[in-house]
Amino acid sequence: MRTSIATVSISGSLVEKLHACAAAGFDGVEIFEPDLIASDHSPEEIRGLARRLGLTLDLYQPLRDIEGVDDETFAENLRRTAATFATAHRLGIGTVLVCSNVATATVDSDEHSADQLRRLGDVAARYDVRVAFEALAWGRFVDDYRRAWRIVELADHPAVGVCLDSFHVLSRGHDPAAIEDIPGEKIFYLQLADAPALSMDVLSWSRHHRLFPGEGDFDLATFVAHVLATGFDGPLSLEVFNDTFRQTDPDRTAVHALRSLIWLQDKVAALPGVRRAAGLTPVADAKPPVGFDFVELKAEDTSDVEILLEQLGFVAGGRHRTKPVSLWTAGDVRVVLNEHQARDRTPHVAAVGLQVPDGDATSRRAADLMAPVAYRRTHASEQALGGAIAPDGTEFFWVTAPPAGSPPPWVAEFENGLPPDSASPLTHVDHVNLAVPWQTSDEAVLFLTSVFGLAADAPTEVAGPRGLVRSQVMRTDDGSIRLPLNVAPQVLEASEMPQHVAFACADVVAFARQARSRGLRFLAVPDNYYDYVAGRFGVEESVVAELRELDLLYDRNRDGAFIHFYTRTVGSVFFEFVQRIGDYDGYGTDNAPVRLAAQRVRTTG
Amino acid sequence: MRTSIATVSISGSLVEKLHACAAAGFDGVEIFEPDLIASDHSPEEIRGLARRLGLTLDLYQPLRDIEGVDDETFAENLRRTAATFATAHRLGIGTVLVCSNVATATVDSDEHSADQLRRLGDVAARYDVRVAFEALAWGRFVDDYRRAWRIVELADHPAVGVCLDSFHVLSRGHDPAAIEDIPGEKIFYLQLADAPALSMDVLSWSRHHRLFPGEGDFDLATFVAHVLATGFDGPLSLEVFNDTFRQTDPDRTAVHALRSLIWLQDKVAALPGVRRAAGLTPVADAKPPVGFDFVELKAEDTSDVEILLEQLGFVAGGRHRTKPVSLWTAGDVRVVLNEHQARDRTPHVAAVGLQVPDGDATSRRAADLMAPVAYRRTHASEQALGGAIAPDGTEFFWVTAPPAGSPPPWVAEFENGLPPDSASPLTHVDHVNLAVPWQTSDEAVLFLTSVFGLAADAPTEVAGPRGLVRSQVMRTDDGSIRLPLNVAPQVLEASEMPQHVAFACADVVAFARQARSRGLRFLAVPDNYYDYVAGRFGVEESVVAELRELDLLYDRNRDGAFIHFYTRTVGSVFFEFVQRIGDYDGYGTDNAPVRLAAQRVRTTG
Repeated sequence: MRTSIATVSISGSLVEKLHACAAAGFDGVEIFEPDLIASDHSPEEIRGLARRLGLTLDLYQPLRDIEGVDDETFAENLRRTAATFATAHRLGIGTVLVCSNVATATVDSDEHSADQLRRLGDVAARYDVRVAFEALAWGRFVDDYRRAWRIVELADHPAVGVCLDSFHVLSRGHDPAAIEDIPGEKIFYLQLADAPALSMDVLSWSRHHRLFPGEGDFDLATFVAHVLATGFDGPLSLEVFNDTFRQTDPDRTAVHALRSLIWLQDKVAALPGVRRAAGLTPVADAKPPVGFDFVELKAEDTSDVEILLEQLGFVAGGRHRTKPVSLWTAGDVRVVLNEHQARDRTPHVAAVGLQVPDGDATSRRAADLMAPVAYRRTHASEQALGGAIAPDGTEFFWVTAPPAGSPPPWVAEFENGLPPDSASPLTHVDHVNLAVPWQTSDEAVLFLTSVFGLAADAPTEVAGPRGLVRSQVMRTDDGSIRLPLNVAPQVLEASEMPQHVAFACADVVAFARQARSRGLRFLAVPDNYYDYVAGRFGVEESVVAELRELDLLYDRNRDGAFIHFYTRTVGSVFFEFVQRIGDYDGYGTDNAPVRLAAQRVRTTG
Repeated sequence: MRTSIATVSISGSLVEKLHACAAAGFDGVEIFEPDLIASDHSPEEIRGLARRLGLTLDLYQPLRDIEGVDDETFAENLRRTAATFATAHRLGIGTVLVCSNVATATVDSDEHSADQLRRLGDVAARYDVRVAFEALAWGRFVDDYRRAWRIVELADHPAVGVCLDSFHVLSRGHDPAAIEDIPGEKIFYLQLADAPALSMDVLSWSRHHRLFPGEGDFDLATFVAHVLATGFDGPLSLEVFNDTFRQTDPDRTAVHALRSLIWLQDKVAALPGVRRAAGLTPVADAKPPVGFDFVELKAEDTSDVEILLEQLGFVAGGRHRTKPVSLWTAGDVRVVLNEHQARDRTPHVAAVGLQVPDGDATSRRAADLMAPVAYRRTHASEQALGGAIAPDGTEFFWVTAPPAGSPPPWVAEFENGLPPDSASPLTHVDHVNLAVPWQTSDEAVLFLTSVFGLAADAPTEVAGPRGLVRSQVMRTDDGSIRLPLNVAPQVLEASEMPQHVAFACADVVAFARQARSRGLRFLAVPDNYYDYVAGRFGVEESVVAELRELDLLYDRNRDGAFIHFYTRTVGSVFFEFVQRIGDYDGYGTDNAPVRLAAQRVRTTG
């Protein structure tokens, strides 16, 4: 289907916005009136630029507070709308959005509003434009799309139809099924926005917290399916008011926005009963990852990490035959240390390797979703991995999962190493925690959802000594992949937040003892914490003593228990070792403030 | 009255928090359990540190989900609370906060809860602590302080009383008058927080958006008066969960917090019927300012501003006899240019001078409110101005208003200048717009409210090409002082947001013509804007032509009309010239996006 986006969804001047939308690959845009007013390009120049860029101008918006008023006010409104229609005509735009009246409506009558819309349609027709009437969720009298359609039906004017906006319908909890009662040719425009489930006034929610499809909690696929069932063949158009996207790079946001529409079409196509003929852009199918393949840490000098890995019982698995890269293993767990093109960088998580059922399928899917390609120089007889760059810059690679027990083929590229220690108590990577900048945290959700089929858990917040850290876990249903994304408090840069890799052990207490005997320094946990654990959970004194001795942390809930500990931080990475007991499915979030405080003490001395 | 603050209200480790609260001058603190757990100081060490710092430890908090449960759960809860009471006892704290049950309550009965609180009181008494029971606004069954009191009354136990929290009472719109039904000695604790009027779920509102008294919309003075009427003589204690204060400098926030309690006591003392004996800390009375006295711009080299001022018809009013400071006047309007200690700085608003009814009274009030003193070296026979530094670093000076028509005495310190042009079309400074960092915007509201008696208008938001700008106007009722405070989008530093000084003219069109004839470059307004003005307001074509010719902006509402224009930006300051027609009381906010876009075009080329 054709794709479009409202200029209000991205930052910059109108000209910059048009360039960004065209470069991303959108077919058209909606022009938001204030963007035109603030532009030093005339309507004719904007029209010419759009033509040159290959963009259609699909909608001019909005006209506010028009209908449902007394006759005198309406006469003044008609004068005012004529000026707007004239501008739309100069832009070559055929459709103007009219929002339901919020401020000046005094007459609560379908017939009255229909009559005024009909007269509005007469004026619009003189300028060769059509009016798309939209029920705002906070309209004075008209706040439901079903009522907007009733009024349009009564108006019965060829230049008057409805505009449907997913936010206004779904934020109110209105059933979108009745969309199918509207003939497709009377749906003059379709606007799409997702949003998180928030309990707040709908106006603020709409103005600040809209998201691109796939980033929020709305069921947009079903919504679109209802619209397609009417025969609607206009563009899927994004109208996303969001405080972040208003201030971040428009070129990047435009690509991100278009990805959301590609993902959405894929979701719609997967619904039962949706006609293949609907013109939905196809996306290659790929199954979610089944496990972590490796984690790569990068630095100019990785030797500090090597010391840590040795103390943790990892064995040196060799050096790559063409690159300054080394492999460390513990059983089936693989950590890659990369010193290639890492000048001035301290250790950080640079890449995450995933095992997927079919690597080629994932590569095709990533390409269809415009994921930026992660490039690694590959020599003859080396395995080329599929790869994409996540919004925070972390690279994700994938490889077809090898048969159980065998390593992936790329391991053979590492020479002069020791074989993996098959008796390692580490079983797998439990989770990889990435620090993402606030600017790209929503984009990261869509990236991981669309490309890898991960799901977003409900976000949580952790109080640290320097502010609240927002944590959004992305994961597979079975927990084989868990990626907590942490957003730093505003006062910190994302790079000031350490990342971590958590490894699962069968017996974390024994593992901690072993590591300590090898000289590992643990992150010191304050004594008060153990008094708390004893009181909170009623843990036996002998167990508390053992936890205290080894700086282990503890959590318990209805599903099970969790024992874990942290290493010191090297560069911006530390390691965590975890043991999940029973069906415990969390991350010891209640212990995170203790960790953040302890890490700060280490940092500030 | 004694003052206290919950450690959760400020950032840092527990030890840092205690130091910050003591340094600010608080009498005591409430210890938030997670702060203790994360501390590497034992309860005894914290107790010793507090004693050394002269702080009382007033409350340990919170115990959650205790009462209203089945017998088995309650037995486990009693075990858990005993550990908490033991910790409080080690801290030497006599009162523990128990919040009404949110998660595990299953029995909705006053008698049942009272019985469980009574048994809890028995356990507490064994540890020498008292239980302060608080109704959370989102409690499962107990969500109203009146019900919490009923249960405490039924429990009838010397170790069981209530805790009142202004947020939980006022956020729900509960009438605080019934507080007077509670005997003062049964109010075991009093927590105070302000909050903006927001329509959102009360839990998120409470956890993220609380403010210090004087910064939000709650009537805290009346609330406190009801509490004092009971004979309550405990401390006024702040419990403010706020995302910003959690991450900003704790020393600074603690002073800011204490200022809010001093201001609040002043407000309470002013209420009719409040006994003087209540022990309220007195604050010197001072009337609000009656007008702007001067605006000071500072830079290493102010000559670019001088060129601008000349083109605007200002006359050089002389050079200060002891400092590298010059005065520029236009009628009664005074601009001071300061090159003293301004190395590497480009022009910016450094100080605002206010005329007040009694300068000494304002100085005493500022001192009582712990306003940081603004220091200027003053030589013999020079006028020492009262001065304070606002949270964003801008200095505010004040002088007793001279008789109408005469300049303030400090003007005589400027030598070799021209006399003011009495025929200047400029009448006064209309407003001074300051760019404040997000970290101190709430503090700025309290500072200007408490020291100068300004009031906060409802905040607005302006869409710029690089994000939303939040604008908070602080003003006197009569509009003689107007200070819009702008908070930049997160992606920008406050210093990237220009500030401006707006001057009022009797005839802005004539003034614009004059300035243009003197060679002034105006901020260019796009042509599209004038098409919009013609359409939006139905302004006559000849008027629109004049606006267009002179790059003037226009606004109109029910109260009147507004014509204004902007100069180019010099350093980080530009000037605005405004004419208010009729009772127009706004700032042309709808035109601000046009200005922001035009300024960005000038900046980015």
